Amino acid sequence: MSNNLNFSIQGKSLSPTKLDVKARQFSFIVDEPPLLGGSDEGANPVEYLLGSYAGCLNVVFYLIAREEGININSLIINIDGNIDPSKLFGTSKINRAGFHNINVQLDIDSDAPDFVITELISKVKDRCPVNDNLSNITQINYSVTNSVLLT
Amino acid sequence: MSNNLNFSIQGKSLSPTKLDVKARQFSFIVDEPPLLGGSDEGANPVEYLLGSYAGCLNVVFYLIAREEGININSLIINIDGNIDPSKLFGTSKINRAGFHNINVQLDIDSDAPDFVITELISKVKDRCPVNDNLSNITQINYSVTNSVLLT
Repeated sequence: MSNNLNFSIQGKSLSPTKLDVKARQFSFIVDEPPLLGGSDEGANPVEYLLGSYAGCLNVVFYLIAREEGININSLIINIDGNIDPSKLFGTSKINRAGFHNINVQLDIDSDAPDFVITELISKVKDRCPVNDNLSNITQINYSVTNSVLLT
Repeated sequence: MSNNLNFSIQGKSLSPTKLDVKARQFSFIVDEPPLLGGSDEGANPVEYLLGSYAGCLNVVFYLIAREEGININSLIINIDGNIDPSKLFGTSKINRAGFHNINVQLDIDSDAPDFVITELISKVKDRCPVNDNLSNITQINYSVTNSVLLT
């Protein structure tokens, strides 16, 4: 496990909907739109989630295309999904809290035949870190400073 | 399902590592650090993933605290995790591509007793959309424009 890369962020709550996130030298504001009670000063959490996924797909798409000598002229990645907010708002315990499913729409300009692109996408899904963490179960460990310790 | 909220992003690839993401009126750049072959012009995909998670926890934490009359003076949310990049880079098929586990560290300033905070965190995890999508399996559907159609 010595080759592991560690990634971390530090989030400071600025309001009940707004978080200032630091990641190395970068920072970004997460907020909610007025519909969800926020002050709309940044994309919201699930929009960053989808953007993270698109960013990851872009990297892995070009990485594998280069390995395989596939020329890509342009790539557009649009992602969306529906959330039933009833669990978030506490009015239902039935539905899941997050996206029920996620839709990825790729607009690819390439001279490669369709079957090559199909195979490329299959490999991208297999090797994309964010695709893994959204598609599969991940263990999440909680700890609390100055209060309680949870495992 | 008529109460569903749809969230979407549009990503335009600017380079093999850099994606320009639009979410409503917001935009952000996803890139990779030089170690991962990028031009380091923005946080990387998995850093946005962790920031998304922290932003979501902030919202749900204060939402439920307000419901239950729990006073929170301040909240800091630090999240990290390790990724073995060997699957991403294609040098191993054994390990998973994404975070093996994710560590959430909450620094909470509250007068509430520990057991109240413990119970609050349990409810937050249950109702947080991003926690759901990271902890559980989510169906992801792919489609390709101008090339092939995948299901």
